[in-house]
Amino acid sequence: MNSPATPVSASSPSQGSVTLIGGGPGAWDLVTVRGMHALREADVILADHLGPVANLEKLCDVQAKEIIDVAKLPYSRRVSQDQINSLLVAYAREGKKVARLKGGDPYVFGRGYEELSYCRQHGIEVTVIPGVTSAISVPAAVDIPITQRGVTHSFTVVSGHLPPQHPRSLVNWSALAQSGGTLVVLMGVRNVKAITRALIEEGKSPETPAAVISAGTTHQQISARATLGTLARVMQDQKISNPAVYVIGEVADL
Amino acid sequence: MNSPATPVSASSPSQGSVTLIGGGPGAWDLVTVRGMHALREADVILADHLGPVANLEKLCDVQAKEIIDVAKLPYSRRVSQDQINSLLVAYAREGKKVARLKGGDPYVFGRGYEELSYCRQHGIEVTVIPGVTSAISVPAAVDIPITQRGVTHSFTVVSGHLPPQHPRSLVNWSALAQSGGTLVVLMGVRNVKAITRALIEEGKSPETPAAVISAGTTHQQISARATLGTLARVMQDQKISNPAVYVIGEVADL
Repeated sequence: MNSPATPVSASSPSQGSVTLIGGGPGAWDLVTVRGMHALREADVILADHLGPVANLEKLCDVQAKEIIDVAKLPYSRRVSQDQINSLLVAYAREGKKVARLKGGDPYVFGRGYEELSYCRQHGIEVTVIPGVTSAISVPAAVDIPITQRGVTHSFTVVSGHLPPQHPRSLVNWSALAQSGGTLVVLMGVRNVKAITRALIEEGKSPETPAAVISAGTTHQQISARATLGTLARVMQDQKISNPAVYVIGEVADL
Repeated sequence: MNSPATPVSASSPSQGSVTLIGGGPGAWDLVTVRGMHALREADVILADHLGPVANLEKLCDVQAKEIIDVAKLPYSRRVSQDQINSLLVAYAREGKKVARLKGGDPYVFGRGYEELSYCRQHGIEVTVIPGVTSAISVPAAVDIPITQRGVTHSFTVVSGHLPPQHPRSLVNWSALAQSGGTLVVLMGVRNVKAITRALIEEGKSPETPAAVISAGTTHQQISARATLGTLARVMQDQKISNPAVYVIGEVADL
């Protein structure tokens, strides 16, 4: 077998490959044509609970493939990521074509680069197929354009998985409050109260229009309009849960 | 949301419809499956010079359709947009299924919402199909992940079509210099000198890694690495022209 210390050529005939596929926001047909082709060619598919996994049979012959729902892997989240990395390499070393189907785009808070790096470090050929990010497509599903001429010339997509002032946070919420562009928060349900409060304290008007969309582009989609000042309460009242996206900016009220 | 005072029924049997399709960054197979299906069903396709237009025959039977290259419409850019709007409505009123194929995502600096609003104001049924934005997928094409755990928890996509301090600019470049997240500039070739200078003056280190990619994901793709301080010179030396994307942030040097 191949040893990680001396990676063999990626074109070794006995070796498989890994393709990271951006699955898009949820609807099965918002994956790219290239992504669909990669799913069809795959021997093994490792899928998240996000993206088009619920309708995989519309994209490829699932009976002919091994499908692994990595959301159901045992142990903690951190252990799961290590397991995913190991599985990608192990299947590729068996000569399999491995598709790693991820929600949204692999590089938008998706740990895509970690998986790419791990595979390369182990001598496995790896390709990335971009996807439709939920940051843009989910607001679009409720007619909110992330940019609009004369209204905003920029947008910022930010992970809300850590609250402002958390020691490991890398986000300058003060700068985001001043940016003048649309803000889109992913993975921010749990911290919405702290995030909206921080933005207001840093000078963003509580009257700024806002909107939240849960399970966007799927049959479970729900959404609500609010303002920056009312968003946390509206989300609580509407029992918004993950996966959800919220948008803060004038475009939420066009 | 905008809604006309007395919209006609969108289900009028003699009336066609308009679908705005995000064509992705350039490679023909980076359009979504839904977008491909809409192209196949269309009677008329109005296409930009961006997106998959050079290989449309790989996505649908172009002989069976009327294809209009809106980049070749006469008159100035502003007049062209009015013409595009008028053509969308005129074809739909003839009962045609109209596909409006745009580069990237329709709502990322794409005037998609203007086209949507115009059609709705004229009683035309209009649908938006999101696309893979070049802001994320083009850096990915040279192995730059727009986010990476432990490096950046946010990214900002900004239009560089106006220089900093231009009276119509809506961008707070000072805030973007402080944001701590990845910056991605679209349509910023002409103003790269002014933009990089402004970011440095506002406190962003000239040593910040940067990269530029032109015609990303197509056979004409070229790219170069730089720093914030050297980017303008590198782009000039490499004769980088539109369409191009540049990325400023630690992710450009992983």
